[in-house]
Amino acid sequence: MRVSKLFTKTLKEAPADEVAKNAQLLIRAGYVHKEMAGVYAYLPLGLRVIEKIKQIVREEMDGIDSNELIMTTLQRKEIWDKTTRWDDDIVDVWFKTKLKDDTELGLGWSHEEPIVEMMKQYVRVSLYQFQTKMRNELRAKSGIMRGREFIMKDMYSFHASKEDLEAYYNQAIDAYMRVYDRLGIGDETYVTFASGGAFTKFSHEFQTICDAGEDVIYLHRAKNIAINEEVLDDAVKELGVEKDELEAVKTAETGNIFNFGTQKTDEMDLYYVGEDGKDHSLFIGSYGIGITRAMGVIAEKLSDDKGLVWPDNIAPYTVYLVSIGDKGAAEADRLYEELREKGVEVLYDDRDERPGAKFADSELLGIPHRITVSDRLLEKEQYEYTNRMSGETVLLTPEEMLAKLV
Amino acid sequence: MRVSKLFTKTLKEAPADEVAKNAQLLIRAGYVHKEMAGVYAYLPLGLRVIEKIKQIVREEMDGIDSNELIMTTLQRKEIWDKTTRWDDDIVDVWFKTKLKDDTELGLGWSHEEPIVEMMKQYVRVSLYQFQTKMRNELRAKSGIMRGREFIMKDMYSFHASKEDLEAYYNQAIDAYMRVYDRLGIGDETYVTFASGGAFTKFSHEFQTICDAGEDVIYLHRAKNIAINEEVLDDAVKELGVEKDELEAVKTAETGNIFNFGTQKTDEMDLYYVGEDGKDHSLFIGSYGIGITRAMGVIAEKLSDDKGLVWPDNIAPYTVYLVSIGDKGAAEADRLYEELREKGVEVLYDDRDERPGAKFADSELLGIPHRITVSDRLLEKEQYEYTNRMSGETVLLTPEEMLAKLV
Repeated sequence: MRVSKLFTKTLKEAPADEVAKNAQLLIRAGYVHKEMAGVYAYLPLGLRVIEKIKQIVREEMDGIDSNELIMTTLQRKEIWDKTTRWDDDIVDVWFKTKLKDDTELGLGWSHEEPIVEMMKQYVRVSLYQFQTKMRNELRAKSGIMRGREFIMKDMYSFHASKEDLEAYYNQAIDAYMRVYDRLGIGDETYVTFASGGAFTKFSHEFQTICDAGEDVIYLHRAKNIAINEEVLDDAVKELGVEKDELEAVKTAETGNIFNFGTQKTDEMDLYYVGEDGKDHSLFIGSYGIGITRAMGVIAEKLSDDKGLVWPDNIAPYTVYLVSIGDKGAAEADRLYEELREKGVEVLYDDRDERPGAKFADSELLGIPHRITVSDRLLEKEQYEYTNRMSGETVLLTPEEMLAKLV
Repeated sequence: MRVSKLFTKTLKEAPADEVAKNAQLLIRAGYVHKEMAGVYAYLPLGLRVIEKIKQIVREEMDGIDSNELIMTTLQRKEIWDKTTRWDDDIVDVWFKTKLKDDTELGLGWSHEEPIVEMMKQYVRVSLYQFQTKMRNELRAKSGIMRGREFIMKDMYSFHASKEDLEAYYNQAIDAYMRVYDRLGIGDETYVTFASGGAFTKFSHEFQTICDAGEDVIYLHRAKNIAINEEVLDDAVKELGVEKDELEAVKTAETGNIFNFGTQKTDEMDLYYVGEDGKDHSLFIGSYGIGITRAMGVIAEKLSDDKGLVWPDNIAPYTVYLVSIGDKGAAEADRLYEELREKGVEVLYDDRDERPGAKFADSELLGIPHRITVSDRLLEKEQYEYTNRMSGETVLLTPEEMLAKLV
């Protein structure tokens, strides 16, 4: 993509009403547009990051034999009444609306109830979707880390026995950790004990260390144990650690998984007919990853005073190509085509701007690798290469440069 | 994908409350799940069709230099007040909801106003999205052809002059026709004169001949002229045809494009600053394709009494592989891997079912090519090939079969 054809412009200043660092950076770099507090449009660069995160999550969920589908935003009251979760006093983030005949509808903030309703005939199946969830948050000041409208991967698995569910639940934990590794935040993401439900004492959250996070977890780094403060006393007893061995750190919840056991199926009075012809309870697991929240956490953590710093895996483009001078421009045109043919995702700054402005945009946008082609370097048959994460700048021959990027 | 791992089951009977043929077929074949009238979830097979249609549309929109983004469902009242379109008497399909502080919000049924608001600084740019639109339809009985919640590709282009907009508008017409050709309905889709606005006498609809459609167009097949009945008298005069030369046909609107001229920019009081430092009006075009509606129209048109008949381009899988007998099963296992390695999308019916049931499901699902591997045919080193659209069945050697499918 040529920068001259990219419609977004970078901004010198963050918008005054935006207090979250992730949104400040993403708005300045032209990745997102703020529609209102907690509601952001994703511009072309932002959409590319979203799609890359989704693809990583998709590959890992397909890898544990889950099937992708897409459910609906509009929700029926009857289904949620079965578990009492229609009630605004029980779930305080509903957006509600009405059909022309005054039938009340809800806007999906989660999809456990409708998927349980849909799945009554099935066992041994796992389904997931990337869905725009609506949550009527009282305050929404964390940029894309807590939205009133946000993208979530939610997965649900259905089993005939406790053991089958538990085996799948553990597979899901492993798949989640592979996702965080591939997103570049695996080292600082912990499987964390959190409050459970009727069926299990604890659920598991995936908490990523992040100053802008809203949670506090207690961490035993040596034993790789992490506990949400809400279950601190219980978990300490259970896990055989001492409170004073634990370190309190601020975190953002980037995922959670929940073993419902037969709770949902019993509440919703839904059974499957087994081979014995009798009704059986379904064992259900629920597994979420906040896609836009993960993007926000990465923007918070992997950034510096110059702007965003995307890992290669999810950068909207991996190479930022800058030309200086007339001969430089001609060579950059050629190199742009060559790299694209080789499958490299290049953002080519072909604008008539001074080099300093191009370098600053390259840094604000957070593209991992920058190649500069200038009249002066061409005489020596060299390119300048700069790594966004390390800041390292070196001169490379064409062969060395291709070896690095392709 | 193995049918034994596919969670959906085909149904003998269509649900009693579903009157639209497209939804009856899609529900029976396990492509969609009805949540309520006009609101459907897309199960794994249905999602694959949606994604294929989107990819065709994406390639053609990228081909006319449009940029993909994703806007928001939640909409601010202030923006829509500027054009009076917040008013429920003017736009009667709004779903409305509220924030905790009682601020009224709308759920996006279209995105002209917010994109114009967002784009005030830009010209010569085109943007598109695949978005779930919400429309509070009084009745919703056409299956996925008219939803209360549906997927639309909407595109908006911004220009400095009338001429620039008109040139782009014509490019968009060509791109749209390429989309319908690739979807297999190009021969029966007509660029149709429809009512315009303040700026142009006519807008253009893309109408596809379809018995289940809600529109009637007047067609001059020889001259390739199509006119929506709402502008019949005006268009007949303008285009130099006689009313009695025209044939009335039932159609479904699968796309529309609209030249707003400077109407939106003037209503919303949004200008761009030109190189002369002065304010100028923006010329805006708006271009829609109903993604789920197109899927519904194709389901209506390309189907028979045995079920769906997808064209290769958008079929969820292109090959349905059936095994009969023990040796047949071993050979089908091998062939399944071979075809997948060659990049063929295969749905492999590995269930322990009688052949007749497998054939019936293959036809109901509408997979274009069926290969049957049986003990009997293996002795002669042959496969049975059946084409879903033509119904033709032939015996093929392994080489002939591969030549047909790969």
